[in-house]
Formats: sequence, C-alpha cells, structure tokens
Amino acid sequence: MSDDSQVPVEAFDPPYYVAVFTTVRTQEQSGYRETNARMEELVREIPGFLGIDHAQTPGGLGITVGYFRDAGALTQWRTNAEHQTAQKRGRAEWYERYTLHVAKVERSHGFVRGAQQADR
Amino acid sequence: MSDDSQVPVEAFDPPYYVAVFTTVRTQEQSGYRETNARMEELVREIPGFLGIDHAQTPGGLGITVGYFRDAGALTQWRTNAEHQTAQKRGRAEWYERYTLHVAKVERSHGFVRGAQQADR
Repeated sequence: MSDDSQVPVEAFDPPYYVAVFTTVRTQEQSGYRETNARMEELVREIPGFLGIDHAQTPGGLGITVGYFRDAGALTQWRTNAEHQTAQKRGRAEWYERYTLHVAKVERSHGFVRGAQQADR
Repeated sequence: MSDDSQVPVEAFDPPYYVAVFTTVRTQEQSGYRETNARMEELVREIPGFLGIDHAQTPGGLGITVGYFRDAGALTQWRTNAEHQTAQKRGRAEWYERYTLHVAKVERSHGFVRGAQQADR
C-alpha cells in the first residue's frame, strides 16, 4: 500500500492497533501498483480503519503501517477475500521477503512544529 | 535512525514491543546524520533491543520501527539522557512533524522467498 503524503497519521487515543508490514520487493513488479491502489481503496472501507503510513527507500526497504481501532477491524481486513488473493500473488511474485507485526498501541505522542503538544 | 539494509527485522515470538516513529523533516538537517548514527549506536547497547527498520521516501515520509523485548527496554531507551538531548534538538531543528506509537506485538509473521514459513 502506498500513501506517500507528507503528513503522518496522527497519535490516536490508545488503545488502537498497528499492523507494521516491512517488505523487500522482487524485480517482478507487474500488476503491483494497481493491486496496491485497489487494496488501499478496500482497506479504507473497513469500519475501524484509522489510517495508513507508507515509506519506501528507493531500491531498499518499504514500510507500511496500518492503523485500526480494534482487533475486529484487523480481522476483517485479514480475512477479506480480495485482500487474501492479493497476498497470495504478493508471495508468488512481488515480495522477496516481508515481516508483519500486529501490535496494540499503549502509548502515543504527536509533534507538529509550532503547535501545542499532547501526550496520550 | 537509519538502517537501510535490505533485510527487514524478523518476526520474533510475541510478546515484544514496537516503537513506530513516523517523521517529516524540515529543511534544516545539519547535524542530523551524525546524531542519527550515534543514536543507532546507543540503542543497540540497550539490553532487550531486538532490531530496527527504517524506510525513507525521498522528500516524503520517513518511518523508523524499533523492536524491543519488553517495556523496560523501551523505558531505558526513552529515559537515556543522550537520547533525550537528541530528541530536544530534533524538535527544535530537524522535524516538521512526527508521531510515535508504542505498541505490544500480539502476532507476527515472516515470509522469505523459497523458505518454509512460520506464523507466530
């Protein structure tokens, strides 16, 4: 998934969930971009989806972080049939390696230059 | 912190902790690289430090994920005096905005092309 906007997802009130997906891609990327865009469209439809951050080092590591209100939202995303088909294709074609870490946020903090700060 | 190696940190046996740090940098980056390298050196000395992933979209979002065995290791890192000084300078000079999400990993999964897979 890719959302290379300049504004990182905010610090929500815990608890919420993060899905940290770190990837190294193969040379074979045909269809990747389209599927990626479709997945981003799909995940935004999940009730409890909070946002997504993505960073990609050229020729290096990609990190995507999905934010979800609760475990149920994540389960819904994980078991989505179209998402599962895309994952399968990802393993077959697009990813050299990846790691997924699903975690419950206990503490969060945001900083914006010139704004008042809040710990959560 | 920057470790743009091609191999993402592995899926450990839960529970463990992730600190997800998403950043947008300012134009003022003098001293950033040196401090960053020093912080990476420091964090590796923390008992319970498991690894670090970093991805940076050119001109866009940076995401750093630190992995720690337990909350105590994270506390040690958070309260490290040299780290706190660097954070202060980061807010004063290097970061336009950032978000930190500290979370306890409940589930993890790794994929390596051509290898046997394991859910954790």
